[in-house]
Amino acid sequence: MSNAEPGKVYLVGAGPGDPELLTLKAARLLAEAGVVLHDDLVPQSILDMAGKQALIISVGKRCGRKKITQAAIHDLMVVSARRGLAVIRLKSGDPMIFGRAGEEIDALREAGVPFEVVPGVTAASSAAAFLEASLTDRRVSSRVIVLSGHHAARTVPEPELWPGALPIDATLAIYMPGQNLAQVAASLSRSGLPAAMPCVAVTDASRPEATYAASRLGGLSHLPASFAPTLLLVGHAFEAVLTRGMQPESLQHVSTLASSIAADAD
Amino acid sequence: MSNAEPGKVYLVGAGPGDPELLTLKAARLLAEAGVVLHDDLVPQSILDMAGKQALIISVGKRCGRKKITQAAIHDLMVVSARRGLAVIRLKSGDPMIFGRAGEEIDALREAGVPFEVVPGVTAASSAAAFLEASLTDRRVSSRVIVLSGHHAARTVPEPELWPGALPIDATLAIYMPGQNLAQVAASLSRSGLPAAMPCVAVTDASRPEATYAASRLGGLSHLPASFAPTLLLVGHAFEAVLTRGMQPESLQHVSTLASSIAADAD
Repeated sequence: MSNAEPGKVYLVGAGPGDPELLTLKAARLLAEAGVVLHDDLVPQSILDMAGKQALIISVGKRCGRKKITQAAIHDLMVVSARRGLAVIRLKSGDPMIFGRAGEEIDALREAGVPFEVVPGVTAASSAAAFLEASLTDRRVSSRVIVLSGHHAARTVPEPELWPGALPIDATLAIYMPGQNLAQVAASLSRSGLPAAMPCVAVTDASRPEATYAASRLGGLSHLPASFAPTLLLVGHAFEAVLTRGMQPESLQHVSTLASSIAADAD
Repeated sequence: MSNAEPGKVYLVGAGPGDPELLTLKAARLLAEAGVVLHDDLVPQSILDMAGKQALIISVGKRCGRKKITQAAIHDLMVVSARRGLAVIRLKSGDPMIFGRAGEEIDALREAGVPFEVVPGVTAASSAAAFLEASLTDRRVSSRVIVLSGHHAARTVPEPELWPGALPIDATLAIYMPGQNLAQVAASLSRSGLPAAMPCVAVTDASRPEATYAASRLGGLSHLPASFAPTLLLVGHAFEAVLTRGMQPESLQHVSTLASSIAADAD
């Protein structure tokens, strides 16, 4: 354990949203930071953990509405470090999973700025904890496939989430699935997943406002349009979530963390 | 935030090994625990974070040498909770990834014992941070496949790590790859990965004794026999690790965190 070094950039995972799910290291670095450059998805309650000396700058690019370019983020990191500040580049979840850390690391290397990556709890782990369903249950699932539904940055369009056939015993964790779940469902069907495959769309796992909606793949497109999940989990591992939560008259179920816990206690 | 409740079981991720990579929540629950049931892979420095009141019991099953059965672990959890203790079931990494949490959750549900899952930092995130290489670099890799090389618990033998063809743009994170990397390499080749695909075997990422060995897939079987990796990473995302670290006379490179950082600073 060493203090946050001046002139160094820390690429830090903020975890899934609950401030208590920051690592001890992330919390310590935040308290000691000179400047914090954070994504939109990092909640205020986590930013409040930064020391009073810290300059806090949002460098979010929510929903394609670019307030700041990736190059400008690189410049901000490099310039702040060269001014002798301890720079925390704070990303939701784990920085090495869908966080553009690769490009930022290249920029820091090129500029000769020392850096360190501090891993965090990723959204799939947090959603599994919230749903009380393991991502790898050796009885039904031995593999997890982590992919992203957000293909905007691709130069070559790729309509399928997965090329070819998906193994039936894999758990899928689809980050940023978007609001068009019908499109997602169609792509998964074309990859060979059966209509009965359990799907759970999760929003804000680990936060008090966490919700989920569960459905079979065949009914996924009928989830309420207002529901914008941050993660879509697919696989036999979630059979119990459906059995537990499904309303008889409907294929979908929206629950809060509080009511989920209450149901378990019954 | 609430205190550890008596009579409740917490399935807690201890993270990849560095005590500073525990979540704030895991550290708080450990300090308040009545009993801690931990896996072998959880280091002493983390167990030392438990409060003085806590009874600490190893329930590890290292390398198939079963000191305790899974049923006995279930009994210990249930009995301790019914005695009114706050029970911490401490698992290395994240409890919902290769941790048999599914079976333990079923046992707790069946016994009517209240429980909560606290996610942790998984080994793949920690290894990526150590290697300073993103698991999903949108320029070369858009998917991560998490799988396990340890098939001992299977009733039906399955020699292949992956059924069918592996997508060329996926990053593979193989947990517990075992010491027979030649077998792993052969299986990956049969799934269509080219001999030039970068592979990095990592041991104890996040701990001071962390090491890695990098090789092309074609040379993976030539890694030193004494080297028992805890994780094998495969994919184009690790090209820079090979370029950075490879010795001209050999396809393999073993490095410590300290020398890796020193090399970056050059």
